[in-house]
Amino acid sequence: MSFFSFELDPALAADPVFDLHKRGKMEIKATVPLSSRDHLSLAYTPGVARVCEAIAADPALYPDYTWTANTVAVVTDGSAVLGLGNIGPKAAMPVMEGKAILFKQFGGVDSIPICLDTQDVEGIITAVKAMAPSFGGINLEDISAPRCFEIERRLDAELDIPVFHDDQHGTAVVTLAALRNSAKLLGRRLGDLRVVISGAGAAGVAITHMLVAAGVQGANVIICDSRGIIHAERGDLTPVKAELAATTNRSGRTGGIAEALIGADVLIGVSGGLIAESAVAGMAPGGIIFAMANPTPEVAPAIAHKYAAIVATGRSDFPNQINNVLAFPGIFRGALDVRASTITERMKVAAADAIAEVVADDLRADAIVPSPLDPRVAPAVAAAVAAAAEADGVARRAAPVAPEQRAGTVPR
Amino acid sequence: MSFFSFELDPALAADPVFDLHKRGKMEIKATVPLSSRDHLSLAYTPGVARVCEAIAADPALYPDYTWTANTVAVVTDGSAVLGLGNIGPKAAMPVMEGKAILFKQFGGVDSIPICLDTQDVEGIITAVKAMAPSFGGINLEDISAPRCFEIERRLDAELDIPVFHDDQHGTAVVTLAALRNSAKLLGRRLGDLRVVISGAGAAGVAITHMLVAAGVQGANVIICDSRGIIHAERGDLTPVKAELAATTNRSGRTGGIAEALIGADVLIGVSGGLIAESAVAGMAPGGIIFAMANPTPEVAPAIAHKYAAIVATGRSDFPNQINNVLAFPGIFRGALDVRASTITERMKVAAADAIAEVVADDLRADAIVPSPLDPRVAPAVAAAVAAAAEADGVARRAAPVAPEQRAGTVPR
Repeated sequence: MSFFSFELDPALAADPVFDLHKRGKMEIKATVPLSSRDHLSLAYTPGVARVCEAIAADPALYPDYTWTANTVAVVTDGSAVLGLGNIGPKAAMPVMEGKAILFKQFGGVDSIPICLDTQDVEGIITAVKAMAPSFGGINLEDISAPRCFEIERRLDAELDIPVFHDDQHGTAVVTLAALRNSAKLLGRRLGDLRVVISGAGAAGVAITHMLVAAGVQGANVIICDSRGIIHAERGDLTPVKAELAATTNRSGRTGGIAEALIGADVLIGVSGGLIAESAVAGMAPGGIIFAMANPTPEVAPAIAHKYAAIVATGRSDFPNQINNVLAFPGIFRGALDVRASTITERMKVAAADAIAEVVADDLRADAIVPSPLDPRVAPAVAAAVAAAAEADGVARRAAPVAPEQRAGTVPR
Repeated sequence: MSFFSFELDPALAADPVFDLHKRGKMEIKATVPLSSRDHLSLAYTPGVARVCEAIAADPALYPDYTWTANTVAVVTDGSAVLGLGNIGPKAAMPVMEGKAILFKQFGGVDSIPICLDTQDVEGIITAVKAMAPSFGGINLEDISAPRCFEIERRLDAELDIPVFHDDQHGTAVVTLAALRNSAKLLGRRLGDLRVVISGAGAAGVAITHMLVAAGVQGANVIICDSRGIIHAERGDLTPVKAELAATTNRSGRTGGIAEALIGADVLIGVSGGLIAESAVAGMAPGGIIFAMANPTPEVAPAIAHKYAAIVATGRSDFPNQINNVLAFPGIFRGALDVRASTITERMKVAAADAIAEVVADDLRADAIVPSPLDPRVAPAVAAAVAAAAEADGVARRAAPVAPEQRAGTVPR
């Protein structure tokens, strides 16, 4: 047995993180009593058979008489975990458990971490489709680009429940919320902003689409990947990047991040690649820098503040933390509340607007987004998303008067 | 939206079962605090990254720092649900949720219901293998024979975690426990008993194997399917039944259940098919009848008592309820406690013996097995299963001094 036993490195054992994560971070819990024979005969045999028969006769009863309508799978293949890269499904599990308990804490959504033993696009799609009846939604997580685009597109088309790749859309929603409030504070219109996005992975692509959907001019957006500015003349573009090249950077700028930033009003970093101060210095004065890489922002906040009026990061130890937890619990809460069949652009933009609105009356350069712990956020996002789903005709029932919040602090 | 809305049939609405099952029967719960920024930075980013990195560097840490080592998937394709037949994955979900909360209540095992949208053998195997890293064990449930045999065999061979088809082995374990105590009470040896098994599906096949493993003579066993006695001359046998024909019924008896029962000491009904009193009357006097079909036993208890000294059913409203809940929570508790790589015959027999032992000092004809609510059962089964796993060399760590019970009533 010694082959399988282990001892934690003493340096790790001293880290309180390891104590906290021992045995994982979640459990399941019955919501019905099970302590008598009568309880068992209602919750299990013979009583349960009557519920099964009713669902078999009328499948519309399914979401009402199972936990599935409130349950989301958090699915990963471990190929792009945090900033750690392709660490595989098992090493990804602590993140997926964390995501699951944040879903519950902030959105009252029951969420199950599913780490897949395949990184093949068809394998992932097949596995998720097979397990889909068990859930009311699918949150894709930490799947690398460009595979994530195809996987999400196919699953969304082939399943009748919401499929949402959080690294794309969660990030984009919170970024749009932060940009809206930043522009408002600076008295700028989104349509006038010259935007540079550093990073053309899942987040960079989704942010581009979302900003354009919200009013930023595609012509005014420049995207850089690790090889520099994306432009139509480059011969090394994936289909997704080629599409971006066709709709952004209309001035046809070439070069690297320094060339991209000349005269830019907004820098959005979602790459993890450090950006030299000399490049940042080329931005138009009084602009906006979101340096969202974790743990090391693309531009250190102290440097960013020398060149920009508003600075945000992904870190909890600086002001203006742009964190997906502001988005995904409320988005799924709202989608599940109306049993949406998909998550539309309008639902995402509504989520961004709702996040921005929470701090609208109290807007400051160091408070352009709410705190991740602000309890007003998820209910506001959920209500906005549910309304947008109804407007888009993808809701399958009316929003309940009170959202079906089942977070730990709220009695069921 | 009216297409998707519904009203419960008034007759069903009056049934308390439907109220109990509304919104399902389970939820997830965080086991770590999440109410401050510090909590978030430990449980989620940035802290969680250190746990991910440690697991990536040393995969042996995985079971200790995730919830997976205590988590079992309850997987079905909905093809053989209770006595309801092939009602499909969605209509099966209430049973799977029920199973999941029984796992937690009696074994402290976190369990996730997974209802698969495929009934294809390869499709099921592929899906379960893909999701397997997320779990410490797989409980297959309500998958019809003969597909269940191939699915279990393949998954057990290809995965390094326990795979257990409860309809086969859970039923067989509890049946063996009941038969051991019945034989003891009647002063009979297992090796002398003439046994008839009515039903050659998942349960009938597994019971046959288990009884033979425990000392019943294969020659003395006769199995009936819906077409009558299984014997070597029949031309309509599946490979599994052909194998049974080769090892049982050595006297080569032919005919139906009435012919099978002539002179039998034991009748085990796992078919759901009613057995006429005239057939039962042919049994040897003072024997044993387990009529386990739900909700209608193969032989009504009042009739069975006319011909047998010991009568058991699957129902909670008669004495001697032979219910799988006596087995599966403790079997997985024990297997998970030692991180068993599989569940061996010895572990199953040990579970049966442990169940039988719980009531050994208080054996009566109407108490041959413990009550499903007896709190002594699961810990006794777990300890016996863990010891058997160690004896068989399939344990990957020593059993903890106290089993890792995490049932609702036991503080973590």
